[in-house]
Amino acid sequence: MSPPSEPEFDALLAFAHALADAAGVVILPHFRSNLPVDHKGGSTFDPVTAADREAEAAMRLAIAKAYPEHGIIGEEEGSSRADADYCWVLDPIDGTRAFILGQPLWGTLIGLLHRGRPVLGLMHQPFTGERFFSGEREAFFRHRGKERPMRTRGQRALPEAFLACTTPDMFESGEERQRFEALSGRVRLSRFGGDCYNYCLLALGEIDLVVEAGLKPFDILPLIPIIERAGGVVTGWDGGDARGGGRILAAGNAELHRAAVELLSG
Amino acid sequence: MSPPSEPEFDALLAFAHALADAAGVVILPHFRSNLPVDHKGGSTFDPVTAADREAEAAMRLAIAKAYPEHGIIGEEEGSSRADADYCWVLDPIDGTRAFILGQPLWGTLIGLLHRGRPVLGLMHQPFTGERFFSGEREAFFRHRGKERPMRTRGQRALPEAFLACTTPDMFESGEERQRFEALSGRVRLSRFGGDCYNYCLLALGEIDLVVEAGLKPFDILPLIPIIERAGGVVTGWDGGDARGGGRILAAGNAELHRAAVELLSG
Repeated sequence: MSPPSEPEFDALLAFAHALADAAGVVILPHFRSNLPVDHKGGSTFDPVTAADREAEAAMRLAIAKAYPEHGIIGEEEGSSRADADYCWVLDPIDGTRAFILGQPLWGTLIGLLHRGRPVLGLMHQPFTGERFFSGEREAFFRHRGKERPMRTRGQRALPEAFLACTTPDMFESGEERQRFEALSGRVRLSRFGGDCYNYCLLALGEIDLVVEAGLKPFDILPLIPIIERAGGVVTGWDGGDARGGGRILAAGNAELHRAAVELLSG
Repeated sequence: MSPPSEPEFDALLAFAHALADAAGVVILPHFRSNLPVDHKGGSTFDPVTAADREAEAAMRLAIAKAYPEHGIIGEEEGSSRADADYCWVLDPIDGTRAFILGQPLWGTLIGLLHRGRPVLGLMHQPFTGERFFSGEREAFFRHRGKERPMRTRGQRALPEAFLACTTPDMFESGEERQRFEALSGRVRLSRFGGDCYNYCLLALGEIDLVVEAGLKPFDILPLIPIIERAGGVVTGWDGGDARGGGRILAAGNAELHRAAVELLSG
């Protein structure tokens, strides 16, 4: 089975937008509604809400109807038919902590893999009405009915770079934190908070570096086509494949990426 | 000179809204425009942009026309007639770091002091179209043409509390950081990032504690009436007056405030 042709791609992208619409309708009434927060289990607090679960269920139902032969990897309900040629990757609320604190820095992530290769990605922020997504060759930003291509900041060396990271709590070992600080101490400005929103702002040319650890595959797979088609580079800290999650580095251009890998790989 | 009567208060609040409108018109075109960022000076990078300067200038001009006898304390241009009975406190972009990274977690802060006592406060986020402000007795949230009173979360004990703080870099000494961690280690969820937005989300009943250090008076003065009239408590870490800035603690209710002071005052 070959990768999607252009008409196929357009239909799949339109479907991804419809999934985002459906998730937004479910999630937005829960935002700032003081809804109960459950703990998923494990040693650190891992929050999940009815908004996460209902949004993923709505998207799974829509996929099962439109593309019953496609696989699904979802944050809340796990994998089904993950070995299918086409597999959707869903994270209904990336940034659940921001969501339950009322901050608008969370998003619905929708990705599509073809035989394991990310071919399409979309991030939707329904409160601000922002949508960041990959076309077949470019990436686009849509806000209040206006759409424009996104490009990363091509020329920005390390001493002028802006770096973002969701939280220092991501770094599990002292060594991981030291490597992060070796890089964050060399940039012009660094800031915590943001989740998926930061990768989208990198694609939009606002942030130059995103450096994180402990990501799950569904946290990063939908963002890879957005970052790459906007001109950015996304890999592991060692410059290897980002698809498995873990320690992730995104950079606005190749030179900055090289400089960051050098500092992060220790 | 006595504090403002009700008709006076209404006129001053309407004027504060007009100042916020004027600032928003100046700032919003600069947001995500790759505008140059200058360093204000000092040992740590303290960014300022044309958006900060132009917005403060626009608000100062409007105040000078409408209330020439009032004083002004502004982040960018300093103080003029600060000993007047009425004194406006302006922070055109609180959260300049978020602003220059393209994150919507910044706001325009406008406060009014009467003989040093904060009588009115307003925060405006022009990208999301949110406005948080104090009425004479209550606090209000306005978004997309709808307005509603805000109340903090009255019942929320420490083990269930959500805590926010702009950045761990605020803590200058190891002791300050240890005290912060003594508290943040006892809550259910803590998150970095947010600036003035976090105090407004506390007033809205979404966040239970905001703990920061190194604040300037103009960072907190406009927020005090918003927090207090929504039912919250805002003081120094030691429970003392918040008006001077420095180490600031805001809590959604008095019981939570007492528990936090106990841990923060060491």
